Amino acid sequence: MEMAAAKAASGVVVSRPLTFVTGNAKKLEEVRAILGQTVPFQSLKLDLPELQGEPEEISKEKARLAAVEVKGPVLVEDTCLCFNALKGLPGPYIKWFLQKIGHEGLNNLLMAYEDKSAYALCAYSFALGPDAEPITFLGKTLGKIVAARGPNDFGWDSIFQPDGYEQTYAEMPKDEKNKISHRSRALDLVKSHFAEAGYIFETNDSKKRKKDEE
Amino acid sequence: MEMAAAKAASGVVVSRPLTFVTGNAKKLEEVRAILGQTVPFQSLKLDLPELQGEPEEISKEKARLAAVEVKGPVLVEDTCLCFNALKGLPGPYIKWFLQKIGHEGLNNLLMAYEDKSAYALCAYSFALGPDAEPITFLGKTLGKIVAARGPNDFGWDSIFQPDGYEQTYAEMPKDEKNKISHRSRALDLVKSHFAEAGYIFETNDSKKRKKDEE
Repeated sequence: MEMAAAKAASGVVVSRPLTFVTGNAKKLEEVRAILGQTVPFQSLKLDLPELQGEPEEISKEKARLAAVEVKGPVLVEDTCLCFNALKGLPGPYIKWFLQKIGHEGLNNLLMAYEDKSAYALCAYSFALGPDAEPITFLGKTLGKIVAARGPNDFGWDSIFQPDGYEQTYAEMPKDEKNKISHRSRALDLVKSHFAEAGYIFETNDSKKRKKDEE
Repeated sequence: MEMAAAKAASGVVVSRPLTFVTGNAKKLEEVRAILGQTVPFQSLKLDLPELQGEPEEISKEKARLAAVEVKGPVLVEDTCLCFNALKGLPGPYIKWFLQKIGHEGLNNLLMAYEDKSAYALCAYSFALGPDAEPITFLGKTLGKIVAARGPNDFGWDSIFQPDGYEQTYAEMPKDEKNKISHRSRALDLVKSHFAEAGYIFETNDSKKRKKDEE
């Protein structure tokens, strides 16, 4: 499916720049660091309704709604923290759980279980426009839930310790985290897709240049 | 607010019958038993997106979407099971938790806490039509989370024991449950609102009669 979509879109000229929808400065910072100059985008905070359901579906629907609002190409992100003992929950609802019960409360949810394993899941959905079916890219990092360690300034990073590391996301240097994070794994797929599809995003500058040449 | 809306709507003639949106037969059965003939309605299963957020907002948004689909007056229901130790969660996400981790898993969420108290919350939202602001009616029943007891055929009824009772919702006779349930408390408010507002719902029959009389 995704390869076919990539081929079909090859060399497509898109009349507007890509809009990455987020209102979270920390997230935006990571996305900029990971994407670098490979995918040019602008960011926009949009108040979109957040759906219940499975992560991929939530992400696709958000891209659909965003593309209608923006009337152009959009990239949206959804992040889940999934506890294996809870069959993947809180998952897409992690935001509310973090907000209401905090890091200790999240640890407490697993009190009844030996199994503290978890995975961080990132879903990016890209839609070329309001009428295009979104394409989704999933990145997953395995780890476990631990008592909070490290700076407390980015979501649940201080309670997630990725497999093979003695540090939590929060304790790791940013560039180390960005090598193995669920976010970077999903963004790697986004980058590959863009490289293969060869979208050409017209900016105001390029439009003006074109007009001047005519 | 709600009184004002009720007064403003007093005697309003509505050109279509009221549609209660549900696909759950057990729920419909309870609603019919509680409302009796006080509020005439038809039921319809609609595939509406379910939002994340606070229960009242989720309910209002569902009514808005339903009214657009139905193009007429709608009544929608949302049900939450809220654990006090978890600051009201799983709340609106109870459906997913029940589906994935079951009754035992729900009990396990509270393993770390002495406090097993909980409340069942029902939100009804009524919208006169696609352009009307929905009115919400909340019903709440206090109780606690217990190991499952009683028939296992209706959601989380077997793990919720209302305060002042030795039986779970599932163990109680239906008419006993309907006297004290979160659903009946919310529907009592719906009934009062309809009684005060005096909506007149035109049915095909009444329209035909009117036409014959002209």
